[in-house]
Amino acid sequence: MASDSSEPLAISLGDPAGIGPEVLAKCWDNRASFGLPPFVAIGDPRSVEAVWDGPIEIITDPREADSAFDVGLPLIQLTAAEADVPGHPSVAGAHCSLDSLELAVGLARSGSAAGVVTGPVAKEQLYAIGFAHPGQTEFVAERCGVASSNVAMMLAGPTLRTVPVTTHLAVAAISRHLTTSLIEARGRAVLRGLQRSFGIADPRLAIAGLNPHSGEGGALGREEIEIIAPAIAILADEGWRVTGPHPADTLFHASARANYDAAMCMYHDQALIPVKALHFEDAVNVTLGLPIIRTAPDHGTAFDIAGQDKADPRPMAAAIRMAAECALNRAATA
Amino acid sequence: MASDSSEPLAISLGDPAGIGPEVLAKCWDNRASFGLPPFVAIGDPRSVEAVWDGPIEIITDPREADSAFDVGLPLIQLTAAEADVPGHPSVAGAHCSLDSLELAVGLARSGSAAGVVTGPVAKEQLYAIGFAHPGQTEFVAERCGVASSNVAMMLAGPTLRTVPVTTHLAVAAISRHLTTSLIEARGRAVLRGLQRSFGIADPRLAIAGLNPHSGEGGALGREEIEIIAPAIAILADEGWRVTGPHPADTLFHASARANYDAAMCMYHDQALIPVKALHFEDAVNVTLGLPIIRTAPDHGTAFDIAGQDKADPRPMAAAIRMAAECALNRAATA
Repeated sequence: MASDSSEPLAISLGDPAGIGPEVLAKCWDNRASFGLPPFVAIGDPRSVEAVWDGPIEIITDPREADSAFDVGLPLIQLTAAEADVPGHPSVAGAHCSLDSLELAVGLARSGSAAGVVTGPVAKEQLYAIGFAHPGQTEFVAERCGVASSNVAMMLAGPTLRTVPVTTHLAVAAISRHLTTSLIEARGRAVLRGLQRSFGIADPRLAIAGLNPHSGEGGALGREEIEIIAPAIAILADEGWRVTGPHPADTLFHASARANYDAAMCMYHDQALIPVKALHFEDAVNVTLGLPIIRTAPDHGTAFDIAGQDKADPRPMAAAIRMAAECALNRAATA
Repeated sequence: MASDSSEPLAISLGDPAGIGPEVLAKCWDNRASFGLPPFVAIGDPRSVEAVWDGPIEIITDPREADSAFDVGLPLIQLTAAEADVPGHPSVAGAHCSLDSLELAVGLARSGSAAGVVTGPVAKEQLYAIGFAHPGQTEFVAERCGVASSNVAMMLAGPTLRTVPVTTHLAVAAISRHLTTSLIEARGRAVLRGLQRSFGIADPRLAIAGLNPHSGEGGALGREEIEIIAPAIAILADEGWRVTGPHPADTLFHASARANYDAAMCMYHDQALIPVKALHFEDAVNVTLGLPIIRTAPDHGTAFDIAGQDKADPRPMAAAIRMAAECALNRAATA
């Protein structure tokens, strides 16, 4: 079901012992200066109360979020078996974070929420309770009935958007996981996502090579010739504006960035190094290829600073704003 | 023999058909606004005349450079067997570029030049005449009697300096070329280079991991545990201020950069992506670990724009300025 941008965004608090509750509470505090639309938090109110003195408005229907938003932080309550101390994650907290994610996705799937923003979870704790996905992205994809190869994780900052084709792989394993069909599938997810969620009618996608100097004609690796170029040719044949394979080291300076709407990279650090070097505080993780909108701040649980009022809410604010923009763009192109 | 910073810098023009002659001539034109010290070009004057109408002062002794510098571009003449047309490299030009490099290095070795700045050469043409080194850096190291594992290629911009441990390798080959002793050797070259050439008494070196999230405790690769951490421990035991292995994606934003004087990376693009994203026009290639000073602009021959008055002289100017600063620092610490 299509989400409607007049509905609130559903925001899972993430691990109750992490910085998710704190950054979201600070977002509500600064909702005017950050330019944030109404949202509803989903999770254990005790995780917010442990780090914040502001008002919480417990609601049970996302439609109440709009009016509650002026009074306090609207929150749909999911209570953990026991309350965590900030910085000290537990199995109970992991269950609660997973339930919150599940509910947030469900609300977006049903159209009761305009989209989902996910707070940071602790993978180690999730694995301990049987979570079998590499991360929240793959979980959300499964709940939406989309194969994980058909979604793309985009890191989007104000002047650069990148997408890794492979993600959490050892460098030595990248080459054998890279296939033409995977690059094609991710490329389509990105191009369609740029159309639907970013409102770019005829998006331009720059595709990086894997090896230094993009393989230098085969002298420094043949993946460009055998795997990447064929994927580019297929996407181009479909009418998409794709270029590459480009040497990655010269792909991210200002004048190069002006030539594309997103850059697709072959591995995790190739995509994340440039975005985080340029946009550390305001890069947003956006999942493309889903029937729903999903963004996330690009940071982890930061247990080491949880509960110390040190967490920076700007990445969460950027994720909320981007989800709202994507919802507007989708509504406009629907 | 120690070079003396009152001597001129020796600048090899690089391939006569590339943009080297043009950018150096433009540097002389703008010597005041670029803040450049006296230098002497080494190469074929016809390669400069083909792209520039300014005055050339042919000299035969570097000591004449200082007084000639106000009159024209000082140049020690090495003539190719035939003059190249800009944009059309030849075997004769490759020989000339190699001879120019050889002479420039020799002048610095003998103390007649304060240091060497190398213009861009065409590797394909050099390979065709039997050049057996991966690049100019390794050639210069050999001429200086230094093993190539004991030199380090630093890319230095105004707010970030990075050094790749491995350079021109396919991504699939990185892991098997990475050894503790190579990381150690490069690390020492960088740390001593920061002391001698950059005047930093107690330099701080941040060392990146190879894999995403620095291997996540072994789950995403074991090189951090088995290869990188032991090298860091050895360098730390020697009293150097080294940290890591750090996840590379969070190592290059402004507040992270404030914690180190240089970052050592495990492969080419890990080092070059962040520097070029941040400092495309003014990143300088500096070779550390040599008895002489050697810098280079971080661009190639650009045959496609040679002779069209399009080449940007700022990278060459940055390389000249940095060589001069390094010469001053060396003289101060000698």
